[in-house]
Amino acid sequence: MKNFYFELIHTSTKSRARVGRIHTPHGIIDTPNFVAVGTNGTLKGIDNALVDDIGLQLMFCNTYHLMLQPGTQVVKDAGGLHRFIGRNKPIITDSGGFQVFSLAYGTVKDELKSKGATIGDSAVLKINEDGVLFRSYRNGDKVLLTPESSIQAQKDLGADIIIPFDELPPYHIDQHRLVESLHRTHRWEERSLNEHLKNPNNQAIYSVIHGGIDPELRALSCKTLTALPFDGHAIGGSLGKNHEQMFTMLAQTMPLLPTDKPNHLLGIGDLTSVGPCIALGVDTMDSSHPTRCARHGLLFTFNGMVKIMRSSYRTAYGPIDATCYCYTCRNYSAAYLHHLFKAHELTAYTLASIHNLYFMGKLMERYRQQILDNEI
Amino acid sequence: MKNFYFELIHTSTKSRARVGRIHTPHGIIDTPNFVAVGTNGTLKGIDNALVDDIGLQLMFCNTYHLMLQPGTQVVKDAGGLHRFIGRNKPIITDSGGFQVFSLAYGTVKDELKSKGATIGDSAVLKINEDGVLFRSYRNGDKVLLTPESSIQAQKDLGADIIIPFDELPPYHIDQHRLVESLHRTHRWEERSLNEHLKNPNNQAIYSVIHGGIDPELRALSCKTLTALPFDGHAIGGSLGKNHEQMFTMLAQTMPLLPTDKPNHLLGIGDLTSVGPCIALGVDTMDSSHPTRCARHGLLFTFNGMVKIMRSSYRTAYGPIDATCYCYTCRNYSAAYLHHLFKAHELTAYTLASIHNLYFMGKLMERYRQQILDNEI
Repeated sequence: MKNFYFELIHTSTKSRARVGRIHTPHGIIDTPNFVAVGTNGTLKGIDNALVDDIGLQLMFCNTYHLMLQPGTQVVKDAGGLHRFIGRNKPIITDSGGFQVFSLAYGTVKDELKSKGATIGDSAVLKINEDGVLFRSYRNGDKVLLTPESSIQAQKDLGADIIIPFDELPPYHIDQHRLVESLHRTHRWEERSLNEHLKNPNNQAIYSVIHGGIDPELRALSCKTLTALPFDGHAIGGSLGKNHEQMFTMLAQTMPLLPTDKPNHLLGIGDLTSVGPCIALGVDTMDSSHPTRCARHGLLFTFNGMVKIMRSSYRTAYGPIDATCYCYTCRNYSAAYLHHLFKAHELTAYTLASIHNLYFMGKLMERYRQQILDNEI
Repeated sequence: MKNFYFELIHTSTKSRARVGRIHTPHGIIDTPNFVAVGTNGTLKGIDNALVDDIGLQLMFCNTYHLMLQPGTQVVKDAGGLHRFIGRNKPIITDSGGFQVFSLAYGTVKDELKSKGATIGDSAVLKINEDGVLFRSYRNGDKVLLTPESSIQAQKDLGADIIIPFDELPPYHIDQHRLVESLHRTHRWEERSLNEHLKNPNNQAIYSVIHGGIDPELRALSCKTLTALPFDGHAIGGSLGKNHEQMFTMLAQTMPLLPTDKPNHLLGIGDLTSVGPCIALGVDTMDSSHPTRCARHGLLFTFNGMVKIMRSSYRTAYGPIDATCYCYTCRNYSAAYLHHLFKAHELTAYTLASIHNLYFMGKLMERYRQQILDNEI
């Protein structure tokens, strides 16, 4: 694809960490980079013009949510997602699979806490080789999500990067069913790719590497999917139940991906994970963690976490971080933020989110410099 | 007061409507004008730097709320309210009386619906000649609000315009008690003024004209309070139970106020009231109505109200108002706003509030021009 290519600038001499640039029809994404999540076509509490000012280069939107509200046809008729949401920078959409299978099985986290739903009591009506039939939580309509319909929805949305439809198996699954699920996912991804290639529409498509925490299955998934003409590769499926399992899995998996294509780690972006994942070769990763933390009054700085609700911030008349040049730190004191949180004001969530996202941008800039300097 | 004065530019040949400029230590307020309410030192969903961009010249903050959170000492130590909240334009604060007496009696609206609280079951512990003793809803502390302590709190806050402590009598009150309440309010206002004059602190103080909908009591209040060296006059107390009662009261009261001082109508700013009140000579008026409407998806335009949640806006790909140059209309479509409301996104409230406040600014600009042209 002419409008989409990956430019590898430097690989660290110390690790697999690398600096690059993903070129897309809506501009460049410097890598490694953090991808903010705007599920419904907006970040929580920050409008898209402001997101531009913060400097976020890639935004993640969820096809599942946009299918149900406002519907992908509405977005298509608006001229695509960029036009509809007022963002003229790169966007990535997922397939909807993750949300639908979370409805069916619960999330890994739910499952580890034995809160997983069973198919019987969920909105998911049927899962078979064709795809997944589920009920819209908005109006009760039956919706069939298949590799083809997911790609069609993502064509309507028109993001720069799209994701094939995959099955998210439950974390507690026996080996036999895990292997079966993996093969089905591979068949679904190939069907997605074929559907995409009928009308590339100036979009790039990444595969999703599955296999849970089984090194052989991850290797098989890499072998199968890198043999197909995907434009990049995402790491998905179960990433383990703790950081160690994820890092181990990535250490085994990342070397099996081609270095001339960009990769993406799905759903990870907490401060504990970011550094090690980058050292293991991850280019981009998305997470709602920084904005969710912000809404709970947890503010990131290079000197550690600021818990802004603590009474010590009541009279902290300087900015949250004197070295930070974000909109929030330039205009407001920590004491004012503390007050806004205490008063449950909406502006608290906006100003805190701006700060944390700006921090993520600066953090990524630092990592890129450290990689160029072969320090990590 | 040298830093505070009213410049009368033009009075309409057709009505009492007038165009002027209120000069304050933090800049000019063109009149007539709308005053946005930022109870806790922020508008709901719009941070103060953004409020500047919208062009709002005067912001109304509530002393009652700021006394309880973060406390006026915290604001004083921050260098005053302007510094604390990051606003370098004029601010007006009220006395706290309105909120305390609403706790005691319920609001007029509650009362008309028979929802008024009685003193027994409210947070108000004692009302006597000294002032009001009440319990903080935040921490249960007993707080004594008197004319002197209200002014001291407003000195700590340091707004450009402050308001004396008054009694808000219940709407359903017999004539004898209403007269008693009026006299007490006058005594409290004079005590407030005396407390203020000990340390003017570069602040202006408006009286609050009371008297309910009784023309003789309003006249008495005007006579009593305009004889004192207040810098301007606010119209407060019960404004009647409907628009007609308020307009009648204003028609009787406004001619009794000096034309060389600014006046303010407390708590009114709905679109039905604004025009008639301006024609009756009102200079400024405050209300949370435009931002509250915005959060309910009611958007103002010169062609009527847009109910953005209506399904007809699902595919309205143009701006809310093609003639509007607000941040929201310049960046986003009505369809996107509709979607954000349907998806319950915080950005919906922010973008809608920006639009309505910008509209109020433009509306006031129009009124000023129409007055200069003797059209109203």
